[in-house]
Amino acid sequence: MAQGAAPLRRLAEKFARIPGIGRKTAQRMAYYIISLPAEESKAIADTILEACANIHRCAVCCDYTEGELCAVCDDDRRDKGVICVVEQPQDLLAIERTREYNGTYHVLHGAISPLDGIGPEQITVKELLARVAQDGVREVIMATDSDTEGETTAMYLSKLIKPFGVKVTRLAYGIPVGSDLQYADEVTLSRAIEGRRDM
Amino acid sequence: MAQGAAPLRRLAEKFARIPGIGRKTAQRMAYYIISLPAEESKAIADTILEACANIHRCAVCCDYTEGELCAVCDDDRRDKGVICVVEQPQDLLAIERTREYNGTYHVLHGAISPLDGIGPEQITVKELLARVAQDGVREVIMATDSDTEGETTAMYLSKLIKPFGVKVTRLAYGIPVGSDLQYADEVTLSRAIEGRRDM
Repeated sequence: MAQGAAPLRRLAEKFARIPGIGRKTAQRMAYYIISLPAEESKAIADTILEACANIHRCAVCCDYTEGELCAVCDDDRRDKGVICVVEQPQDLLAIERTREYNGTYHVLHGAISPLDGIGPEQITVKELLARVAQDGVREVIMATDSDTEGETTAMYLSKLIKPFGVKVTRLAYGIPVGSDLQYADEVTLSRAIEGRRDM
Repeated sequence: MAQGAAPLRRLAEKFARIPGIGRKTAQRMAYYIISLPAEESKAIADTILEACANIHRCAVCCDYTEGELCAVCDDDRRDKGVICVVEQPQDLLAIERTREYNGTYHVLHGAISPLDGIGPEQITVKELLARVAQDGVREVIMATDSDTEGETTAMYLSKLIKPFGVKVTRLAYGIPVGSDLQYADEVTLSRAIEGRRDM
């Protein structure tokens, strides 16, 4: 049974290891890249190498950046007294898209998950505490995911940060805007009732 | 508004150009690759370059291969008198997975689509006719897609091939095995009735 040329299979296997990319999508990607003119497929490889060579963690918030500091930490107009703690760089982008937040961030690059062998040492907890220990931080907003790992991480960090006399807050739970109430799960709905506000 | 480091954005944009990869998936891929150890991300780039450098079209059937001939064309046990015509290399893999077919293939690398500016010259029609013109070809099976472009291509090729005295067949239309009859569309169902067989 022919299974396609070996280099194509190897490429599809590489793509299939990316979380969220299934076997079929990985194969489609490999065949697509092969079908491109040579300079275009080479450009994809070059862009990967360029990104990996030039991207590192911001010296302050650990977000990915090309420079010494990321665009947020390097911006004098951002309030350095507020730190929003997120699990992943993509979470930071999601909050930036709201255009509502003017503080800084801290990217953990993961969440505490004992089952997966991820403890505080595997994420950027040490770097966060070093920032909190400095003068001037008034509030730390926990914007970790609302799953078990995210909650555990938020609780853990909260206990470490409060002794510094810094206010620790958590993103509000509730029903997503624009969603159909009948499809909201019980836990979300309970939290939404619990957190109800005067109107 | 921070939008992520430029090299990361460029990488995500490259991935987003791949058909079937949305903006979000492309971003997730870029961040995943960046998060890998340097040698692993470099390995992905190298695999792309290796695949593009070593893969070309089989001299006979135009499938992708590393050698002069692909595994099927190079196999003496395959019946060279039957050619199954497919649009894409992935279609060939799908037919191989049935383990039912022992002939050879011809990969068109597309289908005739005047609206997209794809005529017979843009796909491997010339190569197919050269094969049919040689002695020994008894049957050409049209296994192009069952959409408009695939049908048009099958009709077009059939008219060109029949004058050579070669039998031209088309894959059977009908209801997919294991599917729920009530969800079959009218056209498929009409074709299934039309093509009914004694049992």
